[in-house]
Amino acid sequence: MEESKTRVDIILSGGAVLTMDARFSLFDPGAVAVRGDEIVAVGSADEIGTAYKAEEVIDCAGKVVMPGLVNAHAHSPMTLLRALADDLRLDVWLMGYIMPVEREFVRPDFCWLGTQLACAEMIRSGTTCFADMYYFEEAVADAAAQAGMRAVCGQTILKFPAPDALSYDESLSRTRDFILRWQGHPLITPSVAPHAPYTTNPEILQASVDLALEFNIPLQTHVAETTHEIEGLRATTGMSAVPWVEKNRLMETKLITAHCVHVDEADMATLRRHGVGVVHNPTSNLKLSSGFAPVAQMLAMGIDVAIGTDGAASNNDLDMFEELRLAALLAKTVAMDPTVLPARQALEMATIMGARVLGLDQSTGSLEPGKLADIIVVDLRLPHNWPPFRRNEEAIYSQLVYATKGSDVTDVMCNGAWLMREQALLTIGKALIMADARKVARKIDAFLTEREKSVLNKLATIGGLSPRETFEVQATAYLSEQEAQAIVEMITGPDFVIGKSSRRRQYDTYFIFHDQSASRLRYREDEVLVRDALSEEPLPDGYVTEVIYRLTLANQEQEREFDNLVVLSHLHFDARADRSLRFYREYFKPDEERKVYKERRRFHVRYGNTGFTINFDRLQQPEFPGVFVGVSSRTWSAQDAERKAKLIGDMLALFNIGPDKLMRETYLELAAHPEKLEPKGGA
Amino acid sequence: MEESKTRVDIILSGGAVLTMDARFSLFDPGAVAVRGDEIVAVGSADEIGTAYKAEEVIDCAGKVVMPGLVNAHAHSPMTLLRALADDLRLDVWLMGYIMPVEREFVRPDFCWLGTQLACAEMIRSGTTCFADMYYFEEAVADAAAQAGMRAVCGQTILKFPAPDALSYDESLSRTRDFILRWQGHPLITPSVAPHAPYTTNPEILQASVDLALEFNIPLQTHVAETTHEIEGLRATTGMSAVPWVEKNRLMETKLITAHCVHVDEADMATLRRHGVGVVHNPTSNLKLSSGFAPVAQMLAMGIDVAIGTDGAASNNDLDMFEELRLAALLAKTVAMDPTVLPARQALEMATIMGARVLGLDQSTGSLEPGKLADIIVVDLRLPHNWPPFRRNEEAIYSQLVYATKGSDVTDVMCNGAWLMREQALLTIGKALIMADARKVARKIDAFLTEREKSVLNKLATIGGLSPRETFEVQATAYLSEQEAQAIVEMITGPDFVIGKSSRRRQYDTYFIFHDQSASRLRYREDEVLVRDALSEEPLPDGYVTEVIYRLTLANQEQEREFDNLVVLSHLHFDARADRSLRFYREYFKPDEERKVYKERRRFHVRYGNTGFTINFDRLQQPEFPGVFVGVSSRTWSAQDAERKAKLIGDMLALFNIGPDKLMRETYLELAAHPEKLEPKGGA
Repeated sequence: MEESKTRVDIILSGGAVLTMDARFSLFDPGAVAVRGDEIVAVGSADEIGTAYKAEEVIDCAGKVVMPGLVNAHAHSPMTLLRALADDLRLDVWLMGYIMPVEREFVRPDFCWLGTQLACAEMIRSGTTCFADMYYFEEAVADAAAQAGMRAVCGQTILKFPAPDALSYDESLSRTRDFILRWQGHPLITPSVAPHAPYTTNPEILQASVDLALEFNIPLQTHVAETTHEIEGLRATTGMSAVPWVEKNRLMETKLITAHCVHVDEADMATLRRHGVGVVHNPTSNLKLSSGFAPVAQMLAMGIDVAIGTDGAASNNDLDMFEELRLAALLAKTVAMDPTVLPARQALEMATIMGARVLGLDQSTGSLEPGKLADIIVVDLRLPHNWPPFRRNEEAIYSQLVYATKGSDVTDVMCNGAWLMREQALLTIGKALIMADARKVARKIDAFLTEREKSVLNKLATIGGLSPRETFEVQATAYLSEQEAQAIVEMITGPDFVIGKSSRRRQYDTYFIFHDQSASRLRYREDEVLVRDALSEEPLPDGYVTEVIYRLTLANQEQEREFDNLVVLSHLHFDARADRSLRFYREYFKPDEERKVYKERRRFHVRYGNTGFTINFDRLQQPEFPGVFVGVSSRTWSAQDAERKAKLIGDMLALFNIGPDKLMRETYLELAAHPEKLEPKGGA
Repeated sequence: MEESKTRVDIILSGGAVLTMDARFSLFDPGAVAVRGDEIVAVGSADEIGTAYKAEEVIDCAGKVVMPGLVNAHAHSPMTLLRALADDLRLDVWLMGYIMPVEREFVRPDFCWLGTQLACAEMIRSGTTCFADMYYFEEAVADAAAQAGMRAVCGQTILKFPAPDALSYDESLSRTRDFILRWQGHPLITPSVAPHAPYTTNPEILQASVDLALEFNIPLQTHVAETTHEIEGLRATTGMSAVPWVEKNRLMETKLITAHCVHVDEADMATLRRHGVGVVHNPTSNLKLSSGFAPVAQMLAMGIDVAIGTDGAASNNDLDMFEELRLAALLAKTVAMDPTVLPARQALEMATIMGARVLGLDQSTGSLEPGKLADIIVVDLRLPHNWPPFRRNEEAIYSQLVYATKGSDVTDVMCNGAWLMREQALLTIGKALIMADARKVARKIDAFLTEREKSVLNKLATIGGLSPRETFEVQATAYLSEQEAQAIVEMITGPDFVIGKSSRRRQYDTYFIFHDQSASRLRYREDEVLVRDALSEEPLPDGYVTEVIYRLTLANQEQEREFDNLVVLSHLHFDARADRSLRFYREYFKPDEERKVYKERRRFHVRYGNTGFTINFDRLQQPEFPGVFVGVSSRTWSAQDAERKAKLIGDMLALFNIGPDKLMRETYLELAAHPEKLEPKGGA
């Protein structure tokens, strides 16, 4: 009797076998027979026991035996950035934290380590296959293969410099090398991964499509994740994300689109027509406040929707059980119908549908004879998932979707090899990986701590700005309109040479830091109204020639005070600002914020063969009648400063400005303490 | 040296101690000293080590020591209904499954067992305190106290009969008994729990308020969970939920309102003004598609918002780590701002703010000297929560909120007593509880399986209907308008006595079941237009005197056929329908559905001293010109049926209706196969 049985390597027997095949066949008690990397048979425990024998028979009574989960969108190495910075707006998070740290730390060994840590987590929570796009993808692929996991890997291509490439030409060439190196690997499927419509250009997209078609491999990209992306694309291309992707021929490839949050019915029809697979990332979409993807609608239209965790920096874990549960829960309220996305369909998305989206459904995603053995065993005999109802088949799917935790997975097999047995990882040196990861975290902590030490360091790490350090000598007087007018007449007289001049409206926001440095960071919205300071023409509301945004950093203390209240200030940083006030506010988190609004007439003049700026300011906030007249000049040496301070003193005398009219207070101080200055009575 | 130290019972030392006190003090490495049921000291590990000594010193290095979580809304015994029925609309779920099963199974032992199972799950995932409202609450309180958990318990009061009370008078009297029995207990706080505005009445609310004020205890209730509730309340009281609750004086008590999904700004201002605590149940709200609660807005307004799991039948677990994570994630996208509800605040909601909502913040919710020792220890040294960043304090809150799982909790103490050590439950006989729970599940499975066996059984268990079994003899002829008119003239002649008559429009939906019984369940929307079948007056569109909804169950087979195609039918069930077509469709899940729409003139006549109904039907769907004339009578015995069949035969002869004009097909059959009957050419 025993002799007539067919020999296989492993039989998993006695559990409820959830095949996730086309008919959702369920065998309880069932069994799965595995030989080499392949599933040989699936059926009732009795059938399999009668027909097959194996040295290794795993008793799965009380457990579920099911396909390994498919995490269809990840950036695995980002486990090393987990909880580094959370609860921030996307731009502050990305440009303020993630990108500076990536620029500094992302190297092949970082990617290898982060991926091994990701694999440890994914295996422990029942994932056997994932799709990944990051930098140094060869290190990701290598780490995944060493961990024994199946993965679709793509080298991220950006139009900007990336941690692994100075240009997109280099990224494209790295992609070709990557494909040639990994094609045909039993676990790794290479793919092409242009980052997203808004971070690439038609040339990159074109080249990516050509590569994907040349090697007949999947193409992964992010599509329609945020309204910001859609608005930006509309502004630059005149179309939203899905039409842009279609126009650039991406849909001719085996296309995997991550997110698709902001897609309308026409977009969905396009995705459906081209058989494009979508990857839903519910936690990431919620955490970054991207929006609610119309998942139920896409499924109803016949689009294959897989589930992904996205990177650990925006999730913050890679637990597919959590993710598929959230997908099922969220879709119901978004669709205002509790019957949509029932448990069985959620599990389908995370298994066979996920495999289909990745183009791997011939080999994984369900338990069927001839497929590769990607199998997990899940314990249902736990208080949080008890008692079991078996009146109909839906209950077991409900248990798996609504109450099973990643930590209930006991055994994981991929490609016929055990990756975890009785919750012990077999292919990853967990202790070593975790120790190394802690070292990386300490270095990142030190890097950010150093940067956070001063506003200047913090300014430097966000990059994009060209900092400039300057010194300035200046004096300011508070005058009546008549006194100011007299000065205007003087400087247009023979003692002065007038250069460029302008009328401006300046909205200054000061960020004040109460730390030791007592830094003041000024964000100035400088509206140039007309390029002639003498012009008195009335301007229509909102009339502006140009707006200049500037960021200026100073400390509270002045460097030096000369005679006549002429002071020397040190500006640690002065440059055009290329981000919004909101961005800087959320990035720098000032202890205090003050606003100074004024209208300024600015004259560049030469006096004593030296350039000066003379400003005539009317303050609207804090409101002061009269005119503030400031005389200033940039300076580069102590000697030069002394000489210019003396010239300013001469000018003040010429202007008939005595010490009683000179101010000790800055506008910033006036904003906090307007009582320090007695307002000039009328004009 | 050692001698000078103060003796305590237990010191938890070396972990990061997250106090959740008003300043969010964090000691890392820190320690907590416990004596009896009380926290004696919290501080740095060095400080505590210097000042205190204990026999039991627990090494918490690499872990977090924090307050036990507060699950502020639960129906604990419903663990025994977990995954019983999911992905259904609220009414089908509640009236089709949960309530029939509760009517049959909910007894004190059921509640005790379900609560013990709930406690096992809650302790394992770090909850030490919960608020509960269910039936036989004394069994819930007893099970919680035996498990060593802190709980606020309320006996549910409904205006309908409940599993533990035939009337609300009984519920109120049970509540008083319950309060008297449990007041002053070290773990259990009794409360009053009128179910919800729409399931109670002003008398219940009044009596509940009086009880809560008399004993100075919290009052728990559900408020503004669904739009359906709000619309219903508006229709009956003219106001929405929050004003109704205010009007009925509930806000004079220490009020705990679960849900508050559908509240507007005025409602929130009312809640704020009265200091009402809200409990947010994110998973339940999503799963039942109730809506998105404006949590960030409530918090911004200064309302205390706690977090709850709701019952396991609508979640399906009691994992507060999952719940607080979802609260944090969801709020960001609802508010369209990823900076709202940051990790620290989410944890606050689940600890000290939860305690405040329950009125227990003097004793639990934070780790502070003098408070009761409700403490959990959480392991952060796991792949899914690694590496740790310690640059600023937010990272540890991020780790706890975005990546920690319930299964990472290693140790739990409540009221100074260990409930779990190194993941082993100490106060609950888990194996026995689980074995008993499985027995209950098997019985429920059997009960529902029996009911699902036939449509009739399924009809019976939803209750509310008064079923009636009847037999009917009848024959139907297909005639031209002229032939039909001749019959109308005949029955208004001397041979007949005409009783009540009417003109109706009938919309019939047939649910067809392909099982052995081949049942046909007819849902009829019967619009009575006028109470006079002879009336020919044209009626305005939509003119209806009365609408009657009826449910009628028959099998496909006729009982018997007499001469002249007169048939005897068996109607297994015939009663008014008190729920919607949609409800029955989702509850019965028919294999097929067919519609028959017609206009009917109905005459009750006496002929041969016997009552008959004569219907003149014009079919609109399926569309047939001409008139279907049916003669029928209810019958109760074979002898009576035979006699009536003969009388019908006589009438048919009188009406000049030969066998060629009589139909074998029912309207239902015509709906599927209209080709079986040749349409009458014109009127």
